Amino acid sequence: MKYESILNSVYGNLLTIDNIGSVAAYIPELAKVSPEYLGAYVHTLDGQQAGVGDFDVKFSIQSIAKVLSLCLIYRNADTNIWNRVGVEPSGSSFNSLVQLEYDKGIPRNPMINAGAIVVCDMIISTFKNYRSEVLTFVRELAQCDTINYNETVARSELSVGYRNISLVNLMKSFGNIENDIDEVLEFYFLLSSIEMTCQELSRTFLFLANDGKEFLSDRSILSLSQSKRVNAIMQTCGFYDEAGEFSFQVGLPGKSGVGGGIVAVHPDNFSIAVWSPKLNAKGNSYRGFKFLERFTTDTGLSVF
Amino acid sequence: MKYESILNSVYGNLLTIDNIGSVAAYIPELAKVSPEYLGAYVHTLDGQQAGVGDFDVKFSIQSIAKVLSLCLIYRNADTNIWNRVGVEPSGSSFNSLVQLEYDKGIPRNPMINAGAIVVCDMIISTFKNYRSEVLTFVRELAQCDTINYNETVARSELSVGYRNISLVNLMKSFGNIENDIDEVLEFYFLLSSIEMTCQELSRTFLFLANDGKEFLSDRSILSLSQSKRVNAIMQTCGFYDEAGEFSFQVGLPGKSGVGGGIVAVHPDNFSIAVWSPKLNAKGNSYRGFKFLERFTTDTGLSVF
Amino acid sequence: MKYESILNSVYGNLLTIDNIGSVAAYIPELAKVSPEYLGAYVHTLDGQQAGVGDFDVKFSIQSIAKVLSLCLIYRNADTNIWNRVGVEPSGSSFNSLVQLEYDKGIPRNPMINAGAIVVCDMIISTFKNYRSEVLTFVRELAQCDTINYNETVARSELSVGYRNISLVNLMKSFGNIENDIDEVLEFYFLLSSIEMTCQELSRTFLFLANDGKEFLSDRSILSLSQSKRVNAIMQTCGFYDEAGEFSFQVGLPGKSGVGGGIVAVHPDNFSIAVWSPKLNAKGNSYRGFKFLERFTTDTGLSVF
Amino acid sequence: MKYESILNSVYGNLLTIDNIGSVAAYIPELAKVSPEYLGAYVHTLDGQQAGVGDFDVKFSIQSIAKVLSLCLIYRNADTNIWNRVGVEPSGSSFNSLVQLEYDKGIPRNPMINAGAIVVCDMIISTFKNYRSEVLTFVRELAQCDTINYNETVARSELSVGYRNISLVNLMKSFGNIENDIDEVLEFYFLLSSIEMTCQELSRTFLFLANDGKEFLSDRSILSLSQSKRVNAIMQTCGFYDEAGEFSFQVGLPGKSGVGGGIVAVHPDNFSIAVWSPKLNAKGNSYRGFKFLERFTTDTGLSVF
Repeated sequence: MKYESILNSVYGNLLTIDNIGSVAAYIPELAKVSPEYLGAYVHTLDGQQAGVGDFDVKFSIQSIAKVLSLCLIYRNADTNIWNRVGVEPSGSSFNSLVQLEYDKGIPRNPMINAGAIVVCDMIISTFKNYRSEVLTFVRELAQCDTINYNETVARSELSVGYRNISLVNLMKSFGNIENDIDEVLEFYFLLSSIEMTCQELSRTFLFLANDGKEFLSDRSILSLSQSKRVNAIMQTCGFYDEAGEFSFQVGLPGKSGVGGGIVAVHPDNFSIAVWSPKLNAKGNSYRGFKFLERFTTDTGLSVF
Repeated sequence: MKYESILNSVYGNLLTIDNIGSVAAYIPELAKVSPEYLGAYVHTLDGQQAGVGDFDVKFSIQSIAKVLSLCLIYRNADTNIWNRVGVEPSGSSFNSLVQLEYDKGIPRNPMINAGAIVVCDMIISTFKNYRSEVLTFVRELAQCDTINYNETVARSELSVGYRNISLVNLMKSFGNIENDIDEVLEFYFLLSSIEMTCQELSRTFLFLANDGKEFLSDRSILSLSQSKRVNAIMQTCGFYDEAGEFSFQVGLPGKSGVGGGIVAVHPDNFSIAVWSPKLNAKGNSYRGFKFLERFTTDTGLSVF
Repeated sequence: MKYESILNSVYGNLLTIDNIGSVAAYIPELAKVSPEYLGAYVHTLDGQQAGVGDFDVKFSIQSIAKVLSLCLIYRNADTNIWNRVGVEPSGSSFNSLVQLEYDKGIPRNPMINAGAIVVCDMIISTFKNYRSEVLTFVRELAQCDTINYNETVARSELSVGYRNISLVNLMKSFGNIENDIDEVLEFYFLLSSIEMTCQELSRTFLFLANDGKEFLSDRSILSLSQSKRVNAIMQTCGFYDEAGEFSFQVGLPGKSGVGGGIVAVHPDNFSIAVWSPKLNAKGNSYRGFKFLERFTTDTGLSVF
Repeated sequence: MKYESILNSVYGNLLTIDNIGSVAAYIPELAKVSPEYLGAYVHTLDGQQAGVGDFDVKFSIQSIAKVLSLCLIYRNADTNIWNRVGVEPSGSSFNSLVQLEYDKGIPRNPMINAGAIVVCDMIISTFKNYRSEVLTFVRELAQCDTINYNETVARSELSVGYRNISLVNLMKSFGNIENDIDEVLEFYFLLSSIEMTCQELSRTFLFLANDGKEFLSDRSILSLSQSKRVNAIMQTCGFYDEAGEFSFQVGLPGKSGVGGGIVAVHPDNFSIAVWSPKLNAKGNSYRGFKFLERFTTDTGLSVF
């Protein structure tokens, strides 16, 4: 299969449809991004790679970082993490606080904010220089030394993150946060502020299509079992309140962020990243979602 | 791949582990079933079929019927059904009533009781002789004329189904039930009382591994898109509060029932049914779950 | 204090204000009632009685009957009832189902629908001829033999009472309903359909201002302690989501119904009933509430 | 009526019953208090005052301070406060977060933590030197210059107050907190740390029995209407999840704190404060509650 031509075809097609939705407005820094960006990049396990549009422009990966922090702690702590965060989908967000309270401070999964905050707490407890540890981990996966946090974006989010402060304190009241709350939240927002291009993001997630092994070097990032676990979590929990719709329309494990990025992997085949800043009503990239839908339709490659 | 030998190997292995859990006790008829049954059957798209253990003993498919009723209405009504029932996972059951109220009587998905009840209501509105219509549909899929309802089991469940009566009345108060409540509930419990063997169940679900087409005849039961939708719903919503765990451990779209049955499909490969009556704490067959976990590990066939 | 002149003064004043709100529309029979009715009647323990406006027109007492059924079972079963229904206020109605589920089917108090349904269930279990038992009890209190159920209204409510059916089934699933659900609901709606005039209603509740003793005969209806309990429940739970507001504006224990009636008692002083069909946004009689507010302001008689 | 002899009689009686329950353990400073203290003091509007037991020992008034902060802002801001906090009872605490979310950050009433936090926020916005403003207000009411905060207790509570931090951040996310969160919380806990004797506490609340006017000087603290409002709120919301029970057993508007204090007023008659550190299962002073129950039974003075 020639992925380059498929990418080009889908890209051309996408440019003809309306660019619906709106850029995430609650973070001033993100609101400044041009809504017209559209890029995609694919890496395959048979050695192809191809990009279209703005595939080499950096953007804020936001919640996509939740998968990376999960992988970092998972490979170090393995199963010890699942007594502090679950693996089941969570229902709609209107329930998040009461659910968290009902479950005594144990978040439903690591893709919702509360769960990702617990993962940040674990990372702080595990690594002395946790900020650089995460960067090193991500840079090696992406094979790119320039990847970095955007501290302006992080501070901007922290300053309005009252709901997340509410969540972390509720968890602390149940004993599920070990470290200082301010430190945990600061790190959580810092993590979300990582910036990558589609090319880097696609490369970063390729190991999840490769049974947990770094492509080329074959170095093990996660075990096969761990890799399946992360893919399963992305499949059932990766798209806020649209996980079922994404499973149907696209049929791949994936994760989106409010910066407009989406990454998805097809186990044993490829990793793909797309980016377009305007979000649909459920908070996922409008054109990114459409792009992947057509991409899997055209290639016939979905897991279902 | 020789499925027969894999089945035999997994079966032998399962007989050596403890048979943990307990048979569903709230339905007197089900409580009478011997907890020692263990059977499995697989149909593949390359023409193999194989069974082990008690694969030819009939059991109550219970909630597995929710997939069949969904398929029947879906092929007749198509997209019109999604304004009355959602496609997203639902969080834990403790939320079910408040979630249903918050969503104005629209259930989160057709695999939870409320959603399956709405599907029953749609079927009653669509088919004059809906009881026989369902039976005919299932018998043709299973290629077996002896499949039937067990009216004793149905009546037994109806007599203690207060929670389901509560759900249907709440939905009726929001206008999401068209027919008489007693008729809807009676049909809902009748549907759950269908009895099949593993062999019949595996055969019945084979079309979902075959892009919606009946195997052999190639007759279209669902469109490709509809078939993907049903598989996506099973993947994200098919195992009560254990959908994420099943996605990880087994990695296939599937559905379980409190009778101890589980059916799962691997798109483009096979359909498999297992049965063992003892349930784990989340209400899914303890040995059925283990069986599928080892089966996909041994074959390397999971979607992740 | 001359209650007659106070009543006349308040009545005249009320006629000059706008008659805001709307008549309960979900029950066809109630929707037919003229919205212009306005009546009030007071009985005092020093022997006065006085009425104004439409004090001798019968209306549907609706939820006011919840107090009467509570008193009937309380005097027969005493404290045994409080393990099946609580005595605490309940928060807003949006919580009612989840609260009931959280509390394992024990309603917060006997003034909300779920609690009143449990009281009906107790009455059915206690009295062989419970329908006539209630009528006899109420007729004796009101000293009026013509008080009766309105079966047309009862049937009309039953036919659309899906939410109450939902509640009773949820309670039955927790074992807090002993009798047949249809019988309990039928009786519940029958009870609400009792019709009285303001004069009869005021007379009926006079014993709660008289430490539980029937006025004139001094016959004990409730003990002093029981009478205080019922007054305390009316004070904290008698006005749906407006109990705090009523406590402040009027300052008396009382109960309202969607038929537009309100009854209130001032312990050791008087009982008063008002009626005006238009309801405010919280479901309480708009002019009835205003009437009582001015009445207690003018007399200086509130409990605070 | 001779209140002194009644107090003595009740006190003697209380000493003969078991001292059940446990001292609030989550605040180290409070856990150190001897559980054997028992004191009470009454001030009447006919000029009597009397005390028994440990009536002149200072204790932490805790949540009783919520009434005082409410009165301070109410007399300055009047009705403008009710668009930011409600006046209705709140149901059980398990609902507090979801209720607050459902109501868009508007707490149900000023006696629950969330509501009292909003009141603190209003006070900070209104008074430049709010800490001293509160002290002055309370000292004048108590006619005692030694009343003060206990900063050790305040800091001790702040250090474990995660749930309250969660609440305040949730309200901030809805725009219902104007000031810096840390400042609001610090003040909230400082307020709760005020220490008084029963004698001082009883004197402080006497104006609520006197239609809002300071006893002796007749200076207006609250208007008559405001005073009724505060009493109505205490009656329906003053005892956590035991407001209905207190209304019944004691029959007076009142407020309790986890330090073991309870204050209650009988409008137009008296104000009474009791203190005994052990709390019942609902968090109210076990012997304090019993004391008031017998006191109103013996005097026949309840509002019902």
